[in-house]
Amino acid sequence: MMDPDAVHRAVRAALDEDIGAGDLTSRVVVDPAVRTLGQIVARESLVVAGMDVAREVFVQVDESLEFRPRCDEGETLERGECCATVEGTARSILAAERTALNFLQRMCGIATATRRAVALLGGAGVQISGTRKTAPGLRVLDKYAVEVGGGFPHRQGLFDAILIKNNHWRLAGGIARAIETARREMSREGSVFPIEVEAGTIEEVEEAVRAKAEAILLDNMDRATLRAAVVLARGRAFLEVSGGIRAVDLPELALVGVDRISLGSLTHSVRAADLALELRPA
Amino acid sequence: MMDPDAVHRAVRAALDEDIGAGDLTSRVVVDPAVRTLGQIVARESLVVAGMDVAREVFVQVDESLEFRPRCDEGETLERGECCATVEGTARSILAAERTALNFLQRMCGIATATRRAVALLGGAGVQISGTRKTAPGLRVLDKYAVEVGGGFPHRQGLFDAILIKNNHWRLAGGIARAIETARREMSREGSVFPIEVEAGTIEEVEEAVRAKAEAILLDNMDRATLRAAVVLARGRAFLEVSGGIRAVDLPELALVGVDRISLGSLTHSVRAADLALELRPA
Amino acid sequence: MMDPDAVHRAVRAALDEDIGAGDLTSRVVVDPAVRTLGQIVARESLVVAGMDVAREVFVQVDESLEFRPRCDEGETLERGECCATVEGTARSILAAERTALNFLQRMCGIATATRRAVALLGGAGVQISGTRKTAPGLRVLDKYAVEVGGGFPHRQGLFDAILIKNNHWRLAGGIARAIETARREMSREGSVFPIEVEAGTIEEVEEAVRAKAEAILLDNMDRATLRAAVVLARGRAFLEVSGGIRAVDLPELALVGVDRISLGSLTHSVRAADLALELRPA
Amino acid sequence: MMDPDAVHRAVRAALDEDIGAGDLTSRVVVDPAVRTLGQIVARESLVVAGMDVAREVFVQVDESLEFRPRCDEGETLERGECCATVEGTARSILAAERTALNFLQRMCGIATATRRAVALLGGAGVQISGTRKTAPGLRVLDKYAVEVGGGFPHRQGLFDAILIKNNHWRLAGGIARAIETARREMSREGSVFPIEVEAGTIEEVEEAVRAKAEAILLDNMDRATLRAAVVLARGRAFLEVSGGIRAVDLPELALVGVDRISLGSLTHSVRAADLALELRPA
Amino acid sequence: MMDPDAVHRAVRAALDEDIGAGDLTSRVVVDPAVRTLGQIVARESLVVAGMDVAREVFVQVDESLEFRPRCDEGETLERGECCATVEGTARSILAAERTALNFLQRMCGIATATRRAVALLGGAGVQISGTRKTAPGLRVLDKYAVEVGGGFPHRQGLFDAILIKNNHWRLAGGIARAIETARREMSREGSVFPIEVEAGTIEEVEEAVRAKAEAILLDNMDRATLRAAVVLARGRAFLEVSGGIRAVDLPELALVGVDRISLGSLTHSVRAADLALELRPA
Amino acid sequence: MMDPDAVHRAVRAALDEDIGAGDLTSRVVVDPAVRTLGQIVARESLVVAGMDVAREVFVQVDESLEFRPRCDEGETLERGECCATVEGTARSILAAERTALNFLQRMCGIATATRRAVALLGGAGVQISGTRKTAPGLRVLDKYAVEVGGGFPHRQGLFDAILIKNNHWRLAGGIARAIETARREMSREGSVFPIEVEAGTIEEVEEAVRAKAEAILLDNMDRATLRAAVVLARGRAFLEVSGGIRAVDLPELALVGVDRISLGSLTHSVRAADLALELRPA
Repeated sequence: MMDPDAVHRAVRAALDEDIGAGDLTSRVVVDPAVRTLGQIVARESLVVAGMDVAREVFVQVDESLEFRPRCDEGETLERGECCATVEGTARSILAAERTALNFLQRMCGIATATRRAVALLGGAGVQISGTRKTAPGLRVLDKYAVEVGGGFPHRQGLFDAILIKNNHWRLAGGIARAIETARREMSREGSVFPIEVEAGTIEEVEEAVRAKAEAILLDNMDRATLRAAVVLARGRAFLEVSGGIRAVDLPELALVGVDRISLGSLTHSVRAADLALELRPA
Repeated sequence: MMDPDAVHRAVRAALDEDIGAGDLTSRVVVDPAVRTLGQIVARESLVVAGMDVAREVFVQVDESLEFRPRCDEGETLERGECCATVEGTARSILAAERTALNFLQRMCGIATATRRAVALLGGAGVQISGTRKTAPGLRVLDKYAVEVGGGFPHRQGLFDAILIKNNHWRLAGGIARAIETARREMSREGSVFPIEVEAGTIEEVEEAVRAKAEAILLDNMDRATLRAAVVLARGRAFLEVSGGIRAVDLPELALVGVDRISLGSLTHSVRAADLALELRPA
Repeated sequence: MMDPDAVHRAVRAALDEDIGAGDLTSRVVVDPAVRTLGQIVARESLVVAGMDVAREVFVQVDESLEFRPRCDEGETLERGECCATVEGTARSILAAERTALNFLQRMCGIATATRRAVALLGGAGVQISGTRKTAPGLRVLDKYAVEVGGGFPHRQGLFDAILIKNNHWRLAGGIARAIETARREMSREGSVFPIEVEAGTIEEVEEAVRAKAEAILLDNMDRATLRAAVVLARGRAFLEVSGGIRAVDLPELALVGVDRISLGSLTHSVRAADLALELRPA
Repeated sequence: MMDPDAVHRAVRAALDEDIGAGDLTSRVVVDPAVRTLGQIVARESLVVAGMDVAREVFVQVDESLEFRPRCDEGETLERGECCATVEGTARSILAAERTALNFLQRMCGIATATRRAVALLGGAGVQISGTRKTAPGLRVLDKYAVEVGGGFPHRQGLFDAILIKNNHWRLAGGIARAIETARREMSREGSVFPIEVEAGTIEEVEEAVRAKAEAILLDNMDRATLRAAVVLARGRAFLEVSGGIRAVDLPELALVGVDRISLGSLTHSVRAADLALELRPA
Repeated sequence: MMDPDAVHRAVRAALDEDIGAGDLTSRVVVDPAVRTLGQIVARESLVVAGMDVAREVFVQVDESLEFRPRCDEGETLERGECCATVEGTARSILAAERTALNFLQRMCGIATATRRAVALLGGAGVQISGTRKTAPGLRVLDKYAVEVGGGFPHRQGLFDAILIKNNHWRLAGGIARAIETARREMSREGSVFPIEVEAGTIEEVEEAVRAKAEAILLDNMDRATLRAAVVLARGRAFLEVSGGIRAVDLPELALVGVDRISLGSLTHSVRAADLALELRPA
Repeated sequence: MMDPDAVHRAVRAALDEDIGAGDLTSRVVVDPAVRTLGQIVARESLVVAGMDVAREVFVQVDESLEFRPRCDEGETLERGECCATVEGTARSILAAERTALNFLQRMCGIATATRRAVALLGGAGVQISGTRKTAPGLRVLDKYAVEVGGGFPHRQGLFDAILIKNNHWRLAGGIARAIETARREMSREGSVFPIEVEAGTIEEVEEAVRAKAEAILLDNMDRATLRAAVVLARGRAFLEVSGGIRAVDLPELALVGVDRISLGSLTHSVRAADLALELRPA
């Protein structure tokens, strides 16, 4: 479930920037009394995500519009299938169309790419996760779409997990020192977050294992280094891998022995799913 | 130039969702007194866009940070080159890092893709433009990045241009009727926007030309239909083409005789440019 | 100009089949003394062809009817414009109405499609021509309508040109043998027709060029084969292309370098132009 | 069954215009002694109609040709299937080829389009019918092809049914007066044709019902008017609908409650079926 | 000019395998004293290549045979023309016949196909070249025949040019790394070959251009990608195109803007030219 | 089974001409220590032939390479299937690649075409055979590939069968005299080869039958002559047909009543099968 406030705010911002002073074209072309029925149709195979966001768009534009989902979140639609209908005055539907589609195309695109990544792991029991590399302002929606696609959402932001990246531990005097400092500070505060630390070499992995990091982020390693890291650390820390991973690398990575693969591209390089609004006389 | 208010709001929303209650990791790992110098470095060849947005991120996090661009908007950087530095306390820089990069990677990604699209036109004098298919909440930034890349920004939203799409003119009784209605309504209002109308077939193009549309959006036509449309309409209306256009199609499209090519993918399917923040002791 | 005898015969046959023993409805509904004025009105944009045929219909039904064209052959009418009036007794006009419209709708349909095909060539200096694929019994009228639309009429029938199709040359032992035989026979007869030969492959084009055919009909070639044929044969024979050509293919074909494009569909798959007879009190 | 005289005349006229002074090409290319076997082959899926007409063409050209149908009228052929063979001298077969194909392509085209229209009604028990909008001179053949395709032929001409169109009843003082006049005149003559009257508005339908027209032709009505007309008149008159109906409208029209749908396009805007004659050594 | 040693060896190997223990048929049928005159005759239009190889065959079989070419290498012969005569004992000529024809048919076949490919470029100034896809053992002869036909021979083997194919650069860590490595190694060796690198995508072309490859082999690109590659790389590297190119594609390719088209099919899929040896009494 | 010496020699010659002074590209690009795994993959459906030849290529280049076939000779592979792997140093594999593929593409091409020809006979019990029209130097390999494809190899060369072609018997005073001479000579030598004689006319067939030729090669006959020859000679001699036979003629020829069809094109006009070497990290 997405935070309704986050959805409300994102939709508000999107409508403000798209509609502004009003929909010029509908005003001069479309009779205000005309009612219509719109169908949101998949133009390619995709995984549905974001129905609640689409509903919010239509409702914010005109409370009298009736939005009816025709499928569940996470369902796969084939080309030509309808995911929702919306009924009401044509002017309102046309004003909301682009914004609703912009949300849906992004969210379905993320869910679809995530589902595909999960499929490429072939049931090997490895998690796929997103990152914080989301479109600014859309964190909650992007993360949710990753979850709908079967991914693990990972931390929402800087506030809900500890990930000591190399920029951090270099400033703190190394991995061991950074972990030690963090443990001491948490103990002082009375907080108990598990610690994940980024490592890029075998030596750094060894240091993290020795410092008893709960999790290690194996970042940007070549295949041989990665295999060595797994041999050293498996069973001693939760192992996550990231950095420059393409979809085609997943089947091989699934067998390497890590616990999670995080893919920035799921949210930083989204390919929009192809969806369109088709109108019928009401 | 982007509207500073739009930039401020987008950055505010992004920081809120990323930092929230504070940067947990830095708090427990990084000494609040430590200062550092960060370099934002291109890890692949890219076109720079969004320096002002990055600056806004760092400043909103901590007004005392010093952000210094090292290149101009629109400049091409090669792998390894630095586009900006930021100096100040490590905690502040690390808190801002991800958000600043998320903006920059998206904006540089858009500018780079646009620049490449323009290059693929080979100087044929055809415009490349973006569409309203932007990430919700980032319209102003996405459009600006298209402009930096050499594209034409097109209308910002529904409020600043008339584009009668097929959903509009079907409701209005056909292309001719829709245009006639729009002219009558504008005349009544005293407004004088040029009219662009979407056409998907030869017959629709002929109807738009007869109705003296100022511009025609040739949408989703196969190559043969497009050529036929250009032969019939060139010189009688401004011709824009859209729908399912890939980068590799551009050299051929450049010679077809249209005035503008609009590419939804520039902003709805962004590939993030690869940029990283590298820290040095200050 | 159409052969008046051919027009007379075609109209006679059409009236015989439509009126036969007389117009039952008019006889029981319409007062024989009532006179009226009919206007033949375009209900869509069209090119006028066949005024003389329409006149012949009205005159054969009743010599006292006065038929007055209001436009020239080949003129473009917009929706709502009148192409001719006819004045006289209502019974006669109603008896002639359907037959006159059947001729006009077909002929204007052919002329309109031809004009559009010519427009799609964009002034490239390539001829459009019809074929012998006309409605049986209407050859002269169909060919004439093609000419009115700006097309080249091509041969009227088997008697006025030599076109060695593949069925011919296969029977005659190949292209070279067929041409040689034809030249010898013509020389024996003292006739001197230029020879056109059909070719469907590059090899056949090469054979036709070597045998010095005056013209080559490039039939049903894909685009790449057609281009190859033009490179090999241009300047050495008159090049005509036919087979499966759609209107939307014409702009591209116009630039390929052939001399003539023949379109069977102009006359074998006519779309009737929309014309109606509207009566006013005389 | 078509009237054999009508077929004979149509074929005679077609051969006269195509062959005239003789087949120039065959005379100079093809040895008069060569015999061959031709197969008429479907090059797309189609409904067969006109075998008797094709036979008449071959026999009129040369009585010694042996024409053998390989399928029944109304049968559906797939691409590549043979509908008939013809055997005899190559010269005769080639002389007859184009004319035979012109008839067959038109008739099969009509039958195929009619069959498709019938299929689009989905077994709803509504008739499809042709009109008098046939190619001049080919009324009997066009109507027959409609029947082969499963359509209702409707009246052959003005002589065999009463259809009071708006041009008629306007001249006669309105619908009621026209019907009354027609009944009186028929009674005077001793004839008893049922009366069909054209109506374009609800008021005209009401007038026709009150005047007890046996059938009403609901012409060019929009969907809402049509539905209202059916509610008013169903069960009180046979209801026929016409005017601007496209194939895609048929599924919806089938459920509106009319008894017959007449489609001028079946015969005024024929798309030729794709058939070819292929020769084999005899 | 072919290397005479290569010719000698190829002929030797061919005669060994064909004659082996001797020509059984001639020995039991043909009187050893009978002399004859053979004419090698073209049975279709062809380009002559390989006269020296044919001479070598006859001479190796019997030094006393007199072989006399009647045309030049590269000359076009029409069907029925004689390209060479050979005179001597019938037994020797018959023993050599098949081997001589096997060489000539292959070499004339290659030269003819090359000539035709060159013709299909229409004088656009683009080179046609062969590849290393020759019949094993016949490299020198195959390459020579390409040259006779007007083609560019390209490198003889692995030893005389640098072509970094994708198998190479993948092993070397990418295009940029491979070129860099090659330059460094050549500099160490003191050699200075220009570098050609294979690219199959736009991204690879961009990488090759940035790495300043002297030539780029655009391999197996679809037409749109190829045009895009040319727009990006023309003038910055010599551009060669290869992969799945058919003869009929050449006219279009000639205008795309590449410098060379290489056709593996010229030598890996040779169509033998039709030549025969006809004997006359000497 | 191919003669291993022939294979060794052919491979030796091919490597000499391709590698010569060494593989320039690999030397400057590929690290000598890098090992790799190559897969030879079918890029179209094909019949496998020549695995032993490919192995010989890799072994001659570098004895340490491990070549492992993954399918049997004569097996049909679909697009994408792997026929063999080779493992070892990348430099050696790359040096051998083109030569191995040149052999395999030719041999698989021949086997595939032969298999297809056999299939076109539809199980009619007629043999397909190759001829001596092979690539010079590759006789043994070409013949073997024909056999793998299901063809009959026919004589290897002039030394292992008697075939009295028309050039022979014209020199010997006619068919009867030639056969008589051959029998006398063989009897003198003590050899007992069956005699096959070429005939091109009915009279020559009759003469061959009367002279009790064991086999007759019916060369370049038209269909009618061929049928007559079969009626005259069937059951009295083994009948072989050759000359200008295309694949599409085979179904008909299969039913004519001959015993064998020999196709020069199987080996003189080979279309290379599409195979590629794909490298994976070892």
